[in-house]
Amino acid sequence: MNTFGNILKLTSFGESHCPAIGGVIDGFPANIDIDVDFIQSELNRRRPGTSKLTTSRNEADAVEFLSGIFNGKSTGCPIGFIIRNNDAHSNDYSSIKDLFRPSHADYTYDQKYGIRDYRGGGRASARETAIRVVGGAMAKLLLKQIGVDINARISQVGNVVLNGTKEECDKQYSEIVSQVKAEGDSIGGIISCSIQNCPVGLGEPIYGKLHAALGFAMLSINAVKGFDYGMGFDGIGQKGSELNDVFYNEGDGIKTKTNNSGGIQGGISNGEEIYFRVAFKPVPTIMQDQETVDKEGNKVIFKAKGRHDPCVLQRALPVVESMAALVIADYYLLNKTNKI
Amino acid sequence: MNTFGNILKLTSFGESHCPAIGGVIDGFPANIDIDVDFIQSELNRRRPGTSKLTTSRNEADAVEFLSGIFNGKSTGCPIGFIIRNNDAHSNDYSSIKDLFRPSHADYTYDQKYGIRDYRGGGRASARETAIRVVGGAMAKLLLKQIGVDINARISQVGNVVLNGTKEECDKQYSEIVSQVKAEGDSIGGIISCSIQNCPVGLGEPIYGKLHAALGFAMLSINAVKGFDYGMGFDGIGQKGSELNDVFYNEGDGIKTKTNNSGGIQGGISNGEEIYFRVAFKPVPTIMQDQETVDKEGNKVIFKAKGRHDPCVLQRALPVVESMAALVIADYYLLNKTNKI
Amino acid sequence: MNTFGNILKLTSFGESHCPAIGGVIDGFPANIDIDVDFIQSELNRRRPGTSKLTTSRNEADAVEFLSGIFNGKSTGCPIGFIIRNNDAHSNDYSSIKDLFRPSHADYTYDQKYGIRDYRGGGRASARETAIRVVGGAMAKLLLKQIGVDINARISQVGNVVLNGTKEECDKQYSEIVSQVKAEGDSIGGIISCSIQNCPVGLGEPIYGKLHAALGFAMLSINAVKGFDYGMGFDGIGQKGSELNDVFYNEGDGIKTKTNNSGGIQGGISNGEEIYFRVAFKPVPTIMQDQETVDKEGNKVIFKAKGRHDPCVLQRALPVVESMAALVIADYYLLNKTNKI
Amino acid sequence: MNTFGNILKLTSFGESHCPAIGGVIDGFPANIDIDVDFIQSELNRRRPGTSKLTTSRNEADAVEFLSGIFNGKSTGCPIGFIIRNNDAHSNDYSSIKDLFRPSHADYTYDQKYGIRDYRGGGRASARETAIRVVGGAMAKLLLKQIGVDINARISQVGNVVLNGTKEECDKQYSEIVSQVKAEGDSIGGIISCSIQNCPVGLGEPIYGKLHAALGFAMLSINAVKGFDYGMGFDGIGQKGSELNDVFYNEGDGIKTKTNNSGGIQGGISNGEEIYFRVAFKPVPTIMQDQETVDKEGNKVIFKAKGRHDPCVLQRALPVVESMAALVIADYYLLNKTNKI
Repeated sequence: MNTFGNILKLTSFGESHCPAIGGVIDGFPANIDIDVDFIQSELNRRRPGTSKLTTSRNEADAVEFLSGIFNGKSTGCPIGFIIRNNDAHSNDYSSIKDLFRPSHADYTYDQKYGIRDYRGGGRASARETAIRVVGGAMAKLLLKQIGVDINARISQVGNVVLNGTKEECDKQYSEIVSQVKAEGDSIGGIISCSIQNCPVGLGEPIYGKLHAALGFAMLSINAVKGFDYGMGFDGIGQKGSELNDVFYNEGDGIKTKTNNSGGIQGGISNGEEIYFRVAFKPVPTIMQDQETVDKEGNKVIFKAKGRHDPCVLQRALPVVESMAALVIADYYLLNKTNKI
Repeated sequence: MNTFGNILKLTSFGESHCPAIGGVIDGFPANIDIDVDFIQSELNRRRPGTSKLTTSRNEADAVEFLSGIFNGKSTGCPIGFIIRNNDAHSNDYSSIKDLFRPSHADYTYDQKYGIRDYRGGGRASARETAIRVVGGAMAKLLLKQIGVDINARISQVGNVVLNGTKEECDKQYSEIVSQVKAEGDSIGGIISCSIQNCPVGLGEPIYGKLHAALGFAMLSINAVKGFDYGMGFDGIGQKGSELNDVFYNEGDGIKTKTNNSGGIQGGISNGEEIYFRVAFKPVPTIMQDQETVDKEGNKVIFKAKGRHDPCVLQRALPVVESMAALVIADYYLLNKTNKI
Repeated sequence: MNTFGNILKLTSFGESHCPAIGGVIDGFPANIDIDVDFIQSELNRRRPGTSKLTTSRNEADAVEFLSGIFNGKSTGCPIGFIIRNNDAHSNDYSSIKDLFRPSHADYTYDQKYGIRDYRGGGRASARETAIRVVGGAMAKLLLKQIGVDINARISQVGNVVLNGTKEECDKQYSEIVSQVKAEGDSIGGIISCSIQNCPVGLGEPIYGKLHAALGFAMLSINAVKGFDYGMGFDGIGQKGSELNDVFYNEGDGIKTKTNNSGGIQGGISNGEEIYFRVAFKPVPTIMQDQETVDKEGNKVIFKAKGRHDPCVLQRALPVVESMAALVIADYYLLNKTNKI
Repeated sequence: MNTFGNILKLTSFGESHCPAIGGVIDGFPANIDIDVDFIQSELNRRRPGTSKLTTSRNEADAVEFLSGIFNGKSTGCPIGFIIRNNDAHSNDYSSIKDLFRPSHADYTYDQKYGIRDYRGGGRASARETAIRVVGGAMAKLLLKQIGVDINARISQVGNVVLNGTKEECDKQYSEIVSQVKAEGDSIGGIISCSIQNCPVGLGEPIYGKLHAALGFAMLSINAVKGFDYGMGFDGIGQKGSELNDVFYNEGDGIKTKTNNSGGIQGGISNGEEIYFRVAFKPVPTIMQDQETVDKEGNKVIFKAKGRHDPCVLQRALPVVESMAALVIADYYLLNKTNKI
């Protein structure tokens, strides 16, 4: 279950403190220009250490492509890549070896597998999302060829809705997160994502509805607790007569006057903007004493050490976009098979 | 993409007005008692025509099992079944043959496939959910063996939160939906679902997180626009220090004092109650004139005829439970493979 | 594991003596003419009771399509179908309920599942191949659109190689099988299959090589013990210099002078004729006393009753073609995704 | 399609001359001792340059594990690994850039993808089989826990059947291959493989029969043209009465007196030895002038340069064993799910 996708498939491996994390992108169409600088720039958006608000762990996060690219183009063969874990301080984590951090995956991994790489959260670490960003950047290169554009933004932090110019939002975000950091606490929020110029017809009924695939993708991201699209949870108070999207003929094609459907009807894209929201919880690592139990069930006090983010939203933006890009690219390829 | 699941797989077929809808349940373990009466009773919960508030289409919805069961027990072989479409009035739908109903799947199916069985919404009809209920009832029979219990309830209709006794909630629901029906309109809401006694350890990192699988399952249901679990969208205003679930030793095992995680940590069940919410939009069929376009792009006025629900929440309860049961049963079987 | 295929998927269910066998064809492209008479004629080729040499069980084998077809065309939705088991004489089989027939699947099913529908061999019966023929006939309708032609013939029965005109071969086959039938014995042989006009480029390295998919398909057929393609087992005595297929330019395209590769190079079709052989064992049911054990391990003598074929080759021809058609159609659709 | 397996999955990447080849083993059970020396020793069996008869390309073929192993044990997380291509002489291959070598995959890859990494055969190179050997060695470590033993041997080279002691066979093999090498030619043969102590019950009807999975695995190996198991092609001359395997009670369990079934009945292992044969063609690279065409269709003469094996059988032994081990381990895990 470390593979994502149907035709375009991303297989991921690696833990927080192993020699390298990496992945394999399979089913990537041949003859697409691979702009490695763009991929690295996407990785840089996700990188820790880019501001005082994120963890000070300073990975270079340099991706090394190993196969499937020839003369700057994809060959149709699987694209293997790795990112070395250069800056892993394994010693930082020995104190958590034998206890279960609250709201972390320590306990469940331990119970499930009977063994756990406890260093930095092991496989459950958000470090793995770097692999998604590489895969997503590749998917974006594919989607660029057909004009699809994907953009995510932080629309809410804690219970503060962000609006205004980008600069104003960034400022507001920084202020809130700085305050939370000072308290040794953490905070969540909402990322809103928009997909423009998605071709009509993507989505595979019944169990491959496009929004279900997007929801699955988003819910697989660390710390995500909810997903909705179109009118979502917020539209529940309205009636059918208020929410139905009326079709009209724009001359060059059929459009809808409103877009409460969020660009997807019956699980299939209708050509309008696809938009959805992703709810992130506050990350469980906080710089405060917390009660918990150790492996033997003894009560212990845990206080986090090391480098941690008070808020993951900023770094999660390219992850959300990447998972969306992987879904759209995959469904674009799938959709090629419904006619001969 | 008409198959759901990894080990326990439900394959579904059928449209609203074809001779029969049906399915195949594959990977169902051998030697489990198949209580056909229970399965039929689950189907009856979903059946239209059971109250004045739901469509008056009166399908018997009698499931006929064709294979995979011998002497009342599952054999490990695929279980085929059909439900005849006895009460399909195809003539009712000829008027929608050449137009696209607002917020329905007519337009997208037409664009995707270039052909569309327009009768009663064809494959996009919620009639297909009967197949999910059969599959889900089978999954419940499996889960009964390990003590898992799944219950869904309507927690919100329109913007009215339902609480109080079951009787009070039912009364409130009936009043609201009756009013909406009288207006020829439709209304949505939220179904909340609880899974009790789920074994620890279910969920397959990274791309098979248990909540991601549940979300995917729910989002595949007709009219669903959102999913969250645990603290979900509503917990975003709180901080890590408020939401973290503290572990303690209950004597007979490790528990958490609170359950904001919703019974899942790192994508793996931790033994606490799993709970999640599913947002349903108002169904798009309303008994009012609506503007739209026909296939040639001409503006037309559409008014629904036939039998339709003003609110699907009541009938959706067994569907939500069924999809949850299919996921839990599937992940239970998957989890058998992580150790030798 | 009752689903075959990647994009074009056939899911099968049913045992020898359950109410009906059936299947679901998913991923079938939209807008293809469905010639039901052709499909039934393919089924008739497989039907028992068509000559004195095959079992006298006289199933009508009438396929009933339930969904996915509208106005004579595929809609892109899953195509469900059933074949009723009208002529099942369950009483014939009570004598085998508690023993394990030699070289049958009785023992292994019993050990694997702990329960077994013993009637007529249950799921292990070759009756299931009728479902493959329906699926294969559908695939042939798809392949007809792109000109692919698939033909199987009996090339060896026992150790007698059949050559000469079709009539001569049929005569020779009949004589051998009649003789074997008179002896109450059974006999195997080889079916050779040819695929003409297969497009260049089908086959998915590394683990989806076209010949590997064909081999997998053939080996899944009851009684098959071997598969080879191109020069196969028989070419082993020759050297590279003798077997290499030299390319030349025919003017309208590149061809090979010889075709020892069997139309597939590196797992990908090269446009030449694809040909392969399938080895069938003699069916294990013989009209002679055989020693075996019952469920308690007691030695017993078993003598088959009922209706059985001394040789399955004639009836297996449409099954071999069907599985080949399913593979080629599936890989044709898959191949649409390797470029954007 | 670069992933092999259902539960235990090997994903492979890499070409002959890219920076590294590698793979990801997913679904590997937790808590199994990983003997890296054993894995390397298996790789060494496959390595070129180990005798004067194989290519003199001298890769260290040192596997580097990157993830999924902690304190010498598997963690249940995906195991990523790479093997650097240290000894790749890319310049050797520039002469084949624009032509299609006879019976190689140059032409088909070119046609399928429109682009081709021509260096050393690219993805079609047998170099990829090193990845299979790593995966297979891991599977062997798993199977060791349950006592399964897998052994392959060369049973035929050209048309010479090898029998006698191992030493005699090796000598005979060496003589034949030396002679062929001297001629600048190549030669094929048969590898026979035996699986001892396979548990009863492995194999998933209908489309996951154990022998079909083994056949698929073997046919995916470079240069393989055929597969049979049990009596296979050679038993076709015999009748049912001669080939049926009679059950008897050995006291401690039910056995068969003969084993023409090859340890598999109805697609499910019966506890007897599983044995099968794999036919390899002579590799197409020969040290002789060959006629062919270039990309423009012009006739050209091709003569191989570089390092090539006149016979791959010796090096293919661990590859055959590895693919068998992957299948058996995968089906062992799958079989855990057929009962609760």
